Amino acid sequence: MSHIKLFIPGPVEVSEKTMRAFSRPMIGHRSKDFQALYADIHPKLQQIFYTKQPVFVSTSSAWGVMEGSIRNLVSKKVLTCMSGAFSDKWFDVAKKCGKSAEALQVDWGQPILPEAIEAKLATGEFDAVTLIHNETSTGTMNPLVDIAKVMRKFPDVQFIVDCVSSFTAMKIPFDELGIDLMLAGTQKALALPSGAALFTVSEKAFAKAATLKDRGYYFDFLEFKKNQESSMTPTTPSISHFYALQSKLEDMLTEGLDARYARHMENAKVTRAWVKDRGFAFFPKEGYESVTLTCVANNRGIDVAKLNSALKAKHSCVIDGGYGKIKGTSFRISHMGDESTENIRQLLGWIDGCLAEA
Amino acid sequence: MSHIKLFIPGPVEVSEKTMRAFSRPMIGHRSKDFQALYADIHPKLQQIFYTKQPVFVSTSSAWGVMEGSIRNLVSKKVLTCMSGAFSDKWFDVAKKCGKSAEALQVDWGQPILPEAIEAKLATGEFDAVTLIHNETSTGTMNPLVDIAKVMRKFPDVQFIVDCVSSFTAMKIPFDELGIDLMLAGTQKALALPSGAALFTVSEKAFAKAATLKDRGYYFDFLEFKKNQESSMTPTTPSISHFYALQSKLEDMLTEGLDARYARHMENAKVTRAWVKDRGFAFFPKEGYESVTLTCVANNRGIDVAKLNSALKAKHSCVIDGGYGKIKGTSFRISHMGDESTENIRQLLGWIDGCLAEA
Repeated sequence: MSHIKLFIPGPVEVSEKTMRAFSRPMIGHRSKDFQALYADIHPKLQQIFYTKQPVFVSTSSAWGVMEGSIRNLVSKKVLTCMSGAFSDKWFDVAKKCGKSAEALQVDWGQPILPEAIEAKLATGEFDAVTLIHNETSTGTMNPLVDIAKVMRKFPDVQFIVDCVSSFTAMKIPFDELGIDLMLAGTQKALALPSGAALFTVSEKAFAKAATLKDRGYYFDFLEFKKNQESSMTPTTPSISHFYALQSKLEDMLTEGLDARYARHMENAKVTRAWVKDRGFAFFPKEGYESVTLTCVANNRGIDVAKLNSALKAKHSCVIDGGYGKIKGTSFRISHMGDESTENIRQLLGWIDGCLAEA
Repeated sequence: MSHIKLFIPGPVEVSEKTMRAFSRPMIGHRSKDFQALYADIHPKLQQIFYTKQPVFVSTSSAWGVMEGSIRNLVSKKVLTCMSGAFSDKWFDVAKKCGKSAEALQVDWGQPILPEAIEAKLATGEFDAVTLIHNETSTGTMNPLVDIAKVMRKFPDVQFIVDCVSSFTAMKIPFDELGIDLMLAGTQKALALPSGAALFTVSEKAFAKAATLKDRGYYFDFLEFKKNQESSMTPTTPSISHFYALQSKLEDMLTEGLDARYARHMENAKVTRAWVKDRGFAFFPKEGYESVTLTCVANNRGIDVAKLNSALKAKHSCVIDGGYGKIKGTSFRISHMGDESTENIRQLLGWIDGCLAEA
C-alpha cells in the first residue's frame, strides 16, 4: 500500500525516527529496563505539562481518560461545556457512567465563554467542569486562560481539561492554570501513533478520587499514582508508545518548546492567510481559531471529496473533509505535529493546483 | 540498547515481519482504508475464536476488558474464581466497580474444579462467573471444557473467560463451549506488541449488557458492536495493532491452526520433560500444567536471578524469575508465540550450561 501523508487532525504523519523507536523490541513491563525507560521520560513529561505532579501514560485513546475523569472526580454533578462533536459526547459519557450531568451548550464553532461557566457554577450544584480546550471537530479553541481565572473562584470544583489536539502546540501550564486533570492524545500534535493518552492530575483531584468508591481499576488515578512512584504502570502498558514518546521528547527538547510553539503558530497564520486570500471563511468565530488545525467554512461550495481525491492521486496526501454534521459544509487542514511551515505552504499550493484544475 | 529475547510469559519476542507491519504509516481511523483493514481481519478473527459473533480489538491491555466484563455483565453478584495473582485481582476489580463479588479461592497452583463452581452457582446468588483459563502467574491451566459443561446448567449466569495467555496456543471454541465473554492479550501467544486486547461477546451477554445502565463508554460492549457493524471502533484505535494483527493472522493461517496448537503442545512437552529430567518439580498440580509456559517449583534452590543474569550476558535472552509472592521459589519458562521447538530445546540447553557453570 502506498504511503498517503495525513494532513487530517489526527492521526498525523509519524516520522521515520519515531517509527524506529516505536518498533523497538519488547521488554518486560515489570523489568528494571521498563522502569528506566519511564524514569527517563518522566521529568521531560513534567516539563511539557509544566507541572510538578506525576504524569501518566494511559494505554487507551483519550476517551478512556475522559471517562476516567468522570469516574474519579464527579460525585455531585458535572457541568459539560459543549461546542462540538467531542465535547457534546462527553455529556453522554458522563451519563453512561451513571453520573449527573448538565450541558453548557453553545453552537458548533462558538467558544465557551468564562462568564457562562461562572453563571452555572454560581448555583453551587457542580463539583466538576469538563472543557475541551481545542474542539477538533470544529477547529475552535476555547479561551483557557480566562476560563482558568474563573475556575479559581470555585476551589471545590474540579477543572477537567482535554488538550487532546492542542497539547505541545502551545504552552499550557498545568500547575499555573490550576487545572485538576489535563489529558492529551498521542496521534495529534505529538505526532506519535494512535493508541495512548497522556495525563496529569492535581493533588486536589487525587484527594477527590480517594472519596469515590466506584472509580474502577483501569482508569483509577490513584492506581496510576501508586505505580508511577516506582516508574511502573498499573497494567501492561503499550511499551512501544513509551519508546516512541522517548524519541519524540528528545526531538521536542532539541527543537526547543518555544520554537515549537512558534512553528505551530506560524503554520496556523500561513493557513489562515491562505483561507482569507482565497475567499474562504472560517468555521469558528473570529478570534477563536485553533492553532493546530484550520476548519474552513466551505462558503465557495467546492467539492471537498473531489479535492481530496486529487490530492491523494497527485500528491499522496489528504486533508479532512469535515466532521459529522458539518462534513462537506466545512473542511479541515491540519498543521500540527512535525510539519514545517514550508510543508504547509507546499500543501496549500497543492490545494490551489487541484482546485484550479477541478 | 541490545536486543534481549524474552522467554517470559508476556510480552514475548515479536518477529521482524510483525514489527514491519506494526510500524506502517498511520491512516485515518474514520477512513475507508481503516474499514477495509478491519473488514479484512474480522473473518479471520472469528475463525481463531471459533465464533460467528463479532470480534473486537480493544485499545487497552486485557485488564480494560476484564473490568468491562464486570461493568457490562454483572448486576447481581459475580463469582470470581481465584487461583493466582491475576484471578485474585479480578475480585478486587469487581469491588472497585462497585459490584457485589464472592471469592472462589483455591491455593496458587491448584486448579478451579467444575464441582466447586457448581456448588456455588446452585445457591442462585450469582449472575456471572469470572475464570482465568490459564493463570499466567502460576502456569496453571483450568479445565475449561469441564467447567463449560457445568455452566450449561446455569443459563442465566454469564460465563466470563480470560484466555489472555492461552489464546491461539490451543483450540478454544467460543460458540461451542457456550462462553459469553472471552478475551485475549496481544503480547502473549499472539506474539504482538503489548497495548491491545481481543474479545468476543455472546448474544446472551449483549442482551445482559443492554439492561445495565452504568456500563460506561470506553468498554461498552454495545458500542463496540454498533461500530463493528461498519468495521469501525468506538474510539480512536491503536491502528498499528490492527496492522500487526493482520500480519500475524496471515502467519497463523499459513502455519495452520492445528499445526500451531501441536507446536505449542510440543514446546510444552519438551520443557516438561526437561523439568523432570533435571530433578525440578512443577509448581502447578499435576495434570493442570499450562501449555504456554512452564512454572517450575524451585525445589533445587537454584539462584534464579543469577541464572537470568548469565542467560542475558551469554545468550541475550531471559526467562522469568517468578511472579509476586512466589518469586524466587518458582520460575517460569515461556514457550508460546512464534517459538519453534528447536528454539525451546536451545534455550533449555543454555539454561543447562548456565546452571553447570554457576
